[in-house]
Formats: sequence, C-alpha cells, structure tokens
Amino acid sequence: MILDRIETQKDVKNLTVDEMNTLAEEMRELIINKVNTISGHMGPNLGFVEPTIALHYVFNSPIDKFVFDVSHQCYAHKILTGRKDGYTNSENYLKYTGYTAPEESEHDLFKVGHTSTSVSLACGVAKARDLKNETGNVVAIIGDGSLSGGEALEGLNNAAVLNSNIVVVVNDNEMSIAENHGGLYDNLRVLRDSDGKAECNFFKALGFDYYYLEDGNNIEKLIEMFKKVKDTKHPTVVHLHTLKGKGLKVAEENKERFHYMMPDTLDENKNIKVQNAGTSESYDSVTLEFLKNKVKEDKRTMVVNAATPGVFGFDKNYRTELGSNYTDVGIAEEHAVAYSSALAKCGAKPVFCVMSSFVQRTYDQLSQDLCLNNSPLTILVYWGGISGADATHLCTFDIPLISNIPNMVYLAPTNKEEYLAMLEYAYNQNEHPVALRVPTCKFVSTGVEDKTDYSVLNKYKVVESGSEIAIIGLGNFYWLGKEVKNYLKSELNIDATLINPRYITGVDEELLNSLKENHKLIITLEDGEIDGGFGEKISRYYGNSDVKVLNYGSKKEFTDRVSPAELYDRYHLTKEHIKSDIEKYI
Amino acid sequence: MILDRIETQKDVKNLTVDEMNTLAEEMRELIINKVNTISGHMGPNLGFVEPTIALHYVFNSPIDKFVFDVSHQCYAHKILTGRKDGYTNSENYLKYTGYTAPEESEHDLFKVGHTSTSVSLACGVAKARDLKNETGNVVAIIGDGSLSGGEALEGLNNAAVLNSNIVVVVNDNEMSIAENHGGLYDNLRVLRDSDGKAECNFFKALGFDYYYLEDGNNIEKLIEMFKKVKDTKHPTVVHLHTLKGKGLKVAEENKERFHYMMPDTLDENKNIKVQNAGTSESYDSVTLEFLKNKVKEDKRTMVVNAATPGVFGFDKNYRTELGSNYTDVGIAEEHAVAYSSALAKCGAKPVFCVMSSFVQRTYDQLSQDLCLNNSPLTILVYWGGISGADATHLCTFDIPLISNIPNMVYLAPTNKEEYLAMLEYAYNQNEHPVALRVPTCKFVSTGVEDKTDYSVLNKYKVVESGSEIAIIGLGNFYWLGKEVKNYLKSELNIDATLINPRYITGVDEELLNSLKENHKLIITLEDGEIDGGFGEKISRYYGNSDVKVLNYGSKKEFTDRVSPAELYDRYHLTKEHIKSDIEKYI
Repeated sequence: MILDRIETQKDVKNLTVDEMNTLAEEMRELIINKVNTISGHMGPNLGFVEPTIALHYVFNSPIDKFVFDVSHQCYAHKILTGRKDGYTNSENYLKYTGYTAPEESEHDLFKVGHTSTSVSLACGVAKARDLKNETGNVVAIIGDGSLSGGEALEGLNNAAVLNSNIVVVVNDNEMSIAENHGGLYDNLRVLRDSDGKAECNFFKALGFDYYYLEDGNNIEKLIEMFKKVKDTKHPTVVHLHTLKGKGLKVAEENKERFHYMMPDTLDENKNIKVQNAGTSESYDSVTLEFLKNKVKEDKRTMVVNAATPGVFGFDKNYRTELGSNYTDVGIAEEHAVAYSSALAKCGAKPVFCVMSSFVQRTYDQLSQDLCLNNSPLTILVYWGGISGADATHLCTFDIPLISNIPNMVYLAPTNKEEYLAMLEYAYNQNEHPVALRVPTCKFVSTGVEDKTDYSVLNKYKVVESGSEIAIIGLGNFYWLGKEVKNYLKSELNIDATLINPRYITGVDEELLNSLKENHKLIITLEDGEIDGGFGEKISRYYGNSDVKVLNYGSKKEFTDRVSPAELYDRYHLTKEHIKSDIEKYI
Repeated sequence: MILDRIETQKDVKNLTVDEMNTLAEEMRELIINKVNTISGHMGPNLGFVEPTIALHYVFNSPIDKFVFDVSHQCYAHKILTGRKDGYTNSENYLKYTGYTAPEESEHDLFKVGHTSTSVSLACGVAKARDLKNETGNVVAIIGDGSLSGGEALEGLNNAAVLNSNIVVVVNDNEMSIAENHGGLYDNLRVLRDSDGKAECNFFKALGFDYYYLEDGNNIEKLIEMFKKVKDTKHPTVVHLHTLKGKGLKVAEENKERFHYMMPDTLDENKNIKVQNAGTSESYDSVTLEFLKNKVKEDKRTMVVNAATPGVFGFDKNYRTELGSNYTDVGIAEEHAVAYSSALAKCGAKPVFCVMSSFVQRTYDQLSQDLCLNNSPLTILVYWGGISGADATHLCTFDIPLISNIPNMVYLAPTNKEEYLAMLEYAYNQNEHPVALRVPTCKFVSTGVEDKTDYSVLNKYKVVESGSEIAIIGLGNFYWLGKEVKNYLKSELNIDATLINPRYITGVDEELLNSLKENHKLIITLEDGEIDGGFGEKISRYYGNSDVKVLNYGSKKEFTDRVSPAELYDRYHLTKEHIKSDIEKYI
C-alpha cells in the first residue's frame, strides 16, 4: 500500500505520479467503506481526491493555507494530514468529524459546515498574512454549487481586489447538492465547453486571473496547474472540472442521491442494496401530500427551497410533478425569502421549505423583506430540535432567531391533524408571515380533525386540566410534557395541568393569568435554546406574580456530536430530572 | 410650472421632452429644498429624477411594477405618483416616508430601506404575475453600490434564469454611499469606458440581455432605451450611467457628504453653510482616537466596515490616515464578518464597525464563521437603541440577535472610561468574539480610569447598594436606572440598589442570588426589544424564587417614525411610569 508510506502531507511529495494515482485509489476505497458504515458526504469527497493530493504535492500546508468551503470535500485532506487512522480502522470512524476542525489539526483553519464561506475567510487569512509580513499561499477551495450563495459572491467581489496572493480553486462537478440553478451555471458550462476560453467569463469580469483545467481529476495535470499559480501575486481562479462521485459507479450515475449517503447503502459489490421503500406515514409524507395537492388545486401555489430538496423528500419525480410551481433557487436562502415574500405579497401562494440550521442564513430578509412587509408567506422549518449533529449543523437556534421578529407567527404543531390544520391556516390566510416548525418527534395521528381557528392568535390549548403544577410543552416537547405529567401523577400523586401552547411567538395572557388561581409552578419545555426562546417569555409574564417558573430547553452552547441522550441528561430533559427539580418547590 | 399639470404618473405621458426636462428641474428644486429642511438622501435622489420621469413615461405603473432597491432614489417617483404635496408644501414634509411605502401608494410595492433586495423581490413579483397569467413589466431598480450585497448577487443569479419578463435597471452613479469596493466595479468601469461594448461583461456572464446608456440623465435617450426593452420576454439589464447629486453643484462635487444630508446644510445660494466643526468629545470621537492609536501602535490592526464609513465618522482624511489597515468591503456585511473572523483567527487585530440595523444582515456569519470558531474579533455596534427612525432602520433588535449566539460576549458600556476599558479588553484578548454596544446616551466621563478586568465574564457592578428594589440598567439605560433610583428615593423614600450589568450575554448568578436576601423586586431596563433580550434572562433566573421581576424595553413591533418621547411613554420608560408600576408591588 502506498498509503502505508503516508504519515503526513509531506510524504506525498516523495511519490511519483503513478504512486499518487494508486494512492488515490486506496484513499477512495477507504472513503467508500467508511461512508457506507457511518454515513457521510460521498460524492463530493470522491471527486476531490486527486485535487487534494496535487494540492499537498505542490503547496506546503500549513505554511500555505487551505480554506475549504462547507468542507464536504475534506476527507482526502484529513487522510493526508495525520488522520488516516480515522479511515483505515473502523473503530476510529467517529474519531474525527466529517468537516474541517481546527481542534484536530493545524491543517484545518476553520470549523466549517455551512456553504459559501471559504472565499471570505481566505481573504481574511491572506490579509492577516500581509499585515504580519508573512509569506505563503492562501488557497480557497469552493464547489460550483456554493458559488451562488451571497457570502461567496460578496467574497469573490472582494477577493478580486485583494491585490495580493489568493488562489480560488473552483471545484466544478456540475452539481450542487442537487442540480445547480442560476445564470452563473450557464457561464460555467460555456467555460467548460470552450476549455476556459470563452471571452465572457464571470471570474474575469470580477478581475481574477483565470485558468481552466478540463481534466480536474488528472493528478499530473493538476500538479502542473497548481505549480503555475503557486506564489501568484494576483487573485487567481483555478477552475477545475471534476467528477462528483468519481470511482464509485453508482455515485457517478446518481449524483444527487450520493451527495450524502446513509449507512449500509451499498452491498459488497458497491451496488445499491435493495431497500424497502418506507411507506409509513410521517410528517414528511404528510407535507409532500399537502403541497402536491395544493399545486393541483391552485396554480398560484409555489414550493420554494434553497438547494436542499432531499431534506424535504422532494425527489426528482416529485419535482417534475410540481413543474413550474416549484423553484429551487440554489444555495441562496436570502434570495429565497425575498422572492417568496414578493410572491406572497403579489397574490401567489408560496411555501418556503428550509432546514433549521440554514434558516440562519437569512435573518435580515425575514425581518425586512418579509415581516416588515407582512407578506403572508408560509415557511416550513425542518429538523428543529436538539440532536447529536456536528456543531456546524445544530438546529436549536431557530426559535430565538425567528420568534423575536415582529409580525411573524411561528407555530409548533404536535401531531398530524394539528399540523395539517396549521398548514391549511398558514396557506390560506393573508394576514401574516407564518412559520411552522415541522415536528421531529414521533409521528402521532389522533384520527380526529383539528378544527381550531388558528387566525385567533396566541391561544394555548389546555389538554388536561389539573392544579398546582402546569406543564407547557411546546411542539416536539409536548410529548415530554405528557410523560412528565403522567410521572408526576404516579410518583407524587400530582394532577398537573398539561398545555399545548401551539404558538411560539405569543403569550396567551388570559390563560396564563387564569393559571395563577390554582397553580404554584409552571414548567416550560422547548426543543431548542432557552436563551431568547419561548420559555423566557413565560418567565417574563409571571415575573410580577407569585407563580414560579422553570424553563427547560438546550443551553446556549455549540455541542459537537453529543448524543441526544447525553444532552437530555445535561439539560434535565427527562421526566426523572424534572420530577427531582420540581420536588424542591412543592 | 409643468408640475402643476402633474397629478398622477399618467400626466407625464402628455408632456414633450422639453417639458419633461423642465419638470425635472422643478422636481429637483423641490427635493433640494425639502432635504435641506428635514434631511434625507440628496445625491441618489437628484441623480435619478430623469430616469424616473422616463420610466413613468414609457411604462404604466401600477400594471408595470417598479421595485426600488433601498429606495434612496424614490423621491421623484413619489412626486409623480400622487404625493407631490409632500414636497411642494413644507407643512407636509413629514407626510410621506423617505422610502417606498405601500401604505402610501399602490405604486410602491414594498417597504424597503435595506439595500440589495430589489432584484430578488422583483423575481417574486414577476413569477407571481406569470403564475396568475397576468401581463406587464417588472422593473427592478438598483444602484451600483447595492450590487455588491449578497442578496443582490443571489437575486441576479436567479433573475437571469427567470425565463420571463424582468428588467433590471442598474443606476450606475459610480458611488456606493462612499466609494465602491470590489472587482465588480472595475467591470462597470470597463463597461462605461467601452460604451457597454466590452466582451467581458458581468451581467452577460450571468445570462442577461444587456443595454448600456452613457447619458443616463438624458430623458430623450432614456425613453428610447426603455421603449426598446419594454415587454422583453427575457431577463434584461439596462445599465445607466447617471450623475449622483445632479443639478446641485456641491452635491456633484462632494458625493459622499451629500449622499445623506442633514437639515440646514445649504445656504440660500445652495452652497455649504459654514458650520462650526464639532470639537466636543463624544463616543464617536473616543472611538476614532482609539482606533487611530491602535493602528499606529500595532500594524496588525484592521478597521473594517461595510460601506457606511460616515456612520462612524471615518471621513476621507481619516481613512487615508489608516491606510492599508482600513478596509471598506462595500455593501457586504456577510463578507465583512467572515473576513474579520479570519483576520482575528490568524493573529491580526480586527475591529468591525457596524450599525445596529445592518448587523441583521449577517446572522449566520456571526454564528458559524465567527462564534463557532471563537475568533477574537472586536465588533462595535453603533446606534443601538430606541429611536424615531423609519421602520426600515430600527436599531432595537441587535440584543436578541447577537446575544443568544453561543461564545459571543456582548458588552454595554455606560461612560467613556468604561467604554475605553472595554475596548482595550476586547482588542487585546484572544479568547472570544467581543461585541460592544457603542453608547447612544449622553456622553459621560467620570475622569477615573476603569481598571476592571473584563476577562472575568459576567460580573455585574453594584454602583449603589440599597434594599427592597434593585434596578439593573443596561448600557444607555443605566442612566434611566439612576434617574429612577433617585426618583424612588425622593418620592417613596426607597433606597433602591443600582446595578450596571455591563455584560449583555451572561447572568451574574452570584450577585443575583445575593440580591434575594434583601430585595423583593428587580427591575431591568434595556434600550431595545425585550423579547429575546437581556431582561428575560434575569426573569428566567429568578423564576424559581420569590423575587419579582419587571422587564422594561421596547415591544416586539416595527415602529415607523414614532418619536422617542412617545415610545418611552408607550413602553413605560420614564421614572414616573416605573414608579407607578412599582407601587403595585411594594
């Protein structure tokens, strides 16, 4: 194995091109096996093995600095920079994160998992180098898909006038997570088709020196190219045409599906295992059905998302079925919100689907383009809640982010019928921006249609009436509230009141006031950060009264691949913890 | 007066070109007089009079729809669309906002005051038109300066593939608020120099049809141009070269100073009045001095801002003095944060200056690029607090926005010496991202150096010890707290405790706990939105105790040019109101 000779990135420099090609095959094998065992980004990593080897051959990390965008393509880099044990030995598969992580290695400059950041970060790295009179190359690595994000475009505009060394490696595999969207991608195609020679060139228009390499997975040519641009004194783009999923036939043929891959997808021949299609109902399936029907019923319906259709189950067939009533704007959440707000304002019926972690990318548009204009847009926020995710993909901040913006109505359904009733309300009304936090808890169907009029805002629902203690369980954590209620009954013989608040954005003053009569303690439960969240509004409301309040949720912290069980324990989000806490006050 | 013949925009269509030119002069006069009386955006409005007349001559608003970016150029549009009384009669000068406002007129589609939004909004307007099988042109109007913002670039990328009618009018006056920054502006220059004929064209690279008009203030040529692109079926850019400040000599010659103009700047001959240079000390002057000294002392210092140097007092001389230790990234707040974070991470000493209302434009970069990476960046947040601003420029949301992000330290100084000590701490430390809320209250100097060690986080300062009631006055509102304390003494003979918390982002548990001993009521005062803010954290902390808490601050609402006095009354932010409120609990 060539790999046996690689302890650090420096060892790459002693290899022949043939040996590097062999090394690429060996690394690819490791990546495929690891991802098929623990999940991960398959396609982007397989397509960037050769460029990574060539980068380390030509440049000298960490004096030369690589800044990876979104870092979906950093596995080969990790293998070459002292972390191959995380790939060769399955016992170490969880040792390193799937993203660049400075705590692991001096070769990783930033903790990165959101897209479109590398060029701006690299500008700062380069400027710091210049201020300190240091030398070395700064190399930003960015995929074609990430180019469409506002931060990347702002970064390119500024990088072009840096007047110093910066190399932007554009890893063009002709794909975002799904297909690309936007005029920029026509220009990339024109550049590919002309072997980089087309006069009308997006990067040259911005002022970059520009080089194109058609065979972006050819190590020999890559080395030649990188040698050419090394130590450039002027902002330079190296446009590489690479193959997403390279070396894994099913990944090359199914680029979207193999962007991120779940464990145990492949059999021993590296074919897709026959898997039983999941036919059971879920909040996702309910949403898919709802949106499809709306498109059928009303041609003003628009389903909008920003480059992550897979998160919502919008597969190719589904997208085709929605036709012109579907827009994927690419990685461009800011545009998505402004566009959707205008659609809503002008009488269309848009629904913007977004993952909790990525709704962060569009605060000002939510505030200015949407809420200030009070456009009746429906937003579906997916995956909100405490999870064992990487620190870059936490979904615990959407409640503080969204719910403190004036005019926004943010709803937290707890079962299928409630969710459907809220969806209908949000879609049909014309008064407010309405966001729904799509449940991530167990799927529950009551079988009874929810006939609540949700246009009467901020009315909480008392599900079970009791005394002494009231539990306000928001969204996913309504079910934890129910557990707690039952536990308090069985353990302490307390008949607690159980409340489903449904509205994240407002306080039901009438109800909270009435609870004062025969309740001493209110417990709030929310599946997200307490700071700036829902529970604090309840604490504030009761601040002037004798009622005590305990707020439960996640702490203000970035957790990094910590299991939900451990986090629930840390945050006292179990019936046992909550009972113990309560015993001090009764 | 031609203007007498203009009641609605339709009346423009009956004019000859000569009459339109006269009309332009008449409108210009109105704009100059009004802005010189009540302040406003002078340069951008003067430069867009002729294009506005031509737009209304050729297109048919509101069937054809104009979407203004940032709407710094909408005065002429307002005059022509039934609102000239707001310009002709000085008694009506405050009748209409300085921005597009749908509540005023069907010709204003959106309430807009932040930049870079028009193209995305126009995409939504156009798509809604198509979904509803309606006709008409959609025209986005955007200045060259606004093009560099991420949302605008995301919007252009998507507009280019809309496959339908959309006209983007680029109003290129060769200026942002100050000068432009970025490679894109070199391309605009090349396009201007080649009369639009250069092959390498940013807009064509994205896929737009492209037209250039050198004489962008020539009504006849503008009409010809707009007629050419009217009813286009393909996304089209019309690039106009206009003159910022046109027709007002001092504005043409001092473009930056006359972007936005304070009242009473001009004398009767339209020259700049001799004004006494403000020499008194202020938080701004203290900051300017601090930053200048740091640049002198340490060449790793970088002062960064995003296109609003005037907000901070960074005039041309000052910028020149900072030299390469100063970056204006243009309208690109996302880039500014990522860039600054990388500078800090790599050992430079960056200070990012930003206005409260615009820090909203960069939430995800604060979270991911900055706080997740724990880069020791200093951020100075200006103008935070309740004001009589237009709804588009409120500065009451920065505390909920910034302070709920993990790892961030957000400080609220209350006087000069404290501010300086916090600046020194933030600049010199290497542990955290540290934001400072630059005071907007009266300037106070104690004359005594503040030797607090701010690296010991979340230690509140008890300024005056008392009992029964404790007042926690944050930042600007420390001074209101002091007033309240004195008032309670004189009116109710209560010796309240007065606390300066200093830290927005954390709770001083030890102190809060100790207050329980001899205090029954805690009052929190913050100059910003209560929801998600500082006070709620105090309410939460005391939720399990017998101590009562009242939170004061602004309501979760967009206020629109409501005077601070009225807002203070509405929110009970006066000593009299607070005393009355308190009387219920003592």
